[in-house]
Amino acid sequence: MSQSTTGDIRSAIRSIPDYPRPGVVFRDITTLLGNARAFRRTVDEMVQPWPGAKIDKVAGIEARGFILGGAVAHQLGAGFVPIRKKGKLPHDTVSIAYSLEYGLDEIEMHRDAIAAGERVILVDDLIATGGTATAAVDLLHRIGAEVVAAVFVIDLPDLGGAEKLRRKGVTVRTLVQFEGE
Amino acid sequence: MSQSTTGDIRSAIRSIPDYPRPGVVFRDITTLLGNARAFRRTVDEMVQPWPGAKIDKVAGIEARGFILGGAVAHQLGAGFVPIRKKGKLPHDTVSIAYSLEYGLDEIEMHRDAIAAGERVILVDDLIATGGTATAAVDLLHRIGAEVVAAVFVIDLPDLGGAEKLRRKGVTVRTLVQFEGE
Repeated sequence: MSQSTTGDIRSAIRSIPDYPRPGVVFRDITTLLGNARAFRRTVDEMVQPWPGAKIDKVAGIEARGFILGGAVAHQLGAGFVPIRKKGKLPHDTVSIAYSLEYGLDEIEMHRDAIAAGERVILVDDLIATGGTATAAVDLLHRIGAEVVAAVFVIDLPDLGGAEKLRRKGVTVRTLVQFEGE
Repeated sequence: MSQSTTGDIRSAIRSIPDYPRPGVVFRDITTLLGNARAFRRTVDEMVQPWPGAKIDKVAGIEARGFILGGAVAHQLGAGFVPIRKKGKLPHDTVSIAYSLEYGLDEIEMHRDAIAAGERVILVDDLIATGGTATAAVDLLHRIGAEVVAAVFVIDLPDLGGAEKLRRKGVTVRTLVQFEGE
């Protein structure tokens, strides 16, 4: 991936200081999504290492991972599987609880959404501490999926989430890093 | 659109009786999204009338409209704009309140997400009474967008939402109808 390509993607992301609380810089991808050229380039770059690979399903994490995951699934000719917050899916689910900074959260997917052995790419917009992404990978492994990769537009490497996934043996791809978070 | 094509899409939708409450049949599109062939065909059919038309933005309604909208934007080479529930967007927003069966709800979008005169297609998975979709169209009109069409996979015509949008002069496209809802 050339420096100029990542530069285009990086410059399309809007940084919002002191959101959602003082001292935090929020990385807003809506400006990237709204820019047709940058959006297309982002989707291309997300799956660039897997051009001919057979990918059965793209799993996207609610809610921004739905936008990118829908486009990535379309690009790869794969099906799309939503990983949602607890209580939003209408059929039998498998769920997993995980720790947040304050308390617990829970995500789930339909039990029959992915068959054992299917090849899956996990998609979200950003990886920070990796709590949700790690839980999603554990959930996918539990139902027997082969997690080919976890792909994110933005990595906040100082928060260690991507490294945590790699230590679990997951191939992680990120397009843009913001340090000092 | 041939009968067999809509038949493929229809048969990929799972019907769940008595969800979310007794007497209601929930039309579950996760089985459609997860079926690579049906998902691709759905996206193709959603935008089939606008193959060469210049569409600037696809606006998707949270949350299932994000999945389809992301794929439709990718297909059309357009940007994507999220229309979200109140309080989830980090920058300046325009919002609109609308009535639900019980009480009020509110949706919003970033004020700078769409420029006046831009050509927009609105996407969601399903239109029922049309409360949210009508509010979304009003919001798009308020910021000066040209709403080329509103596109949904599923129409529940007995609930009148598609008809309500058409009476406002909006071109509405739906792929599958379930009557007797």
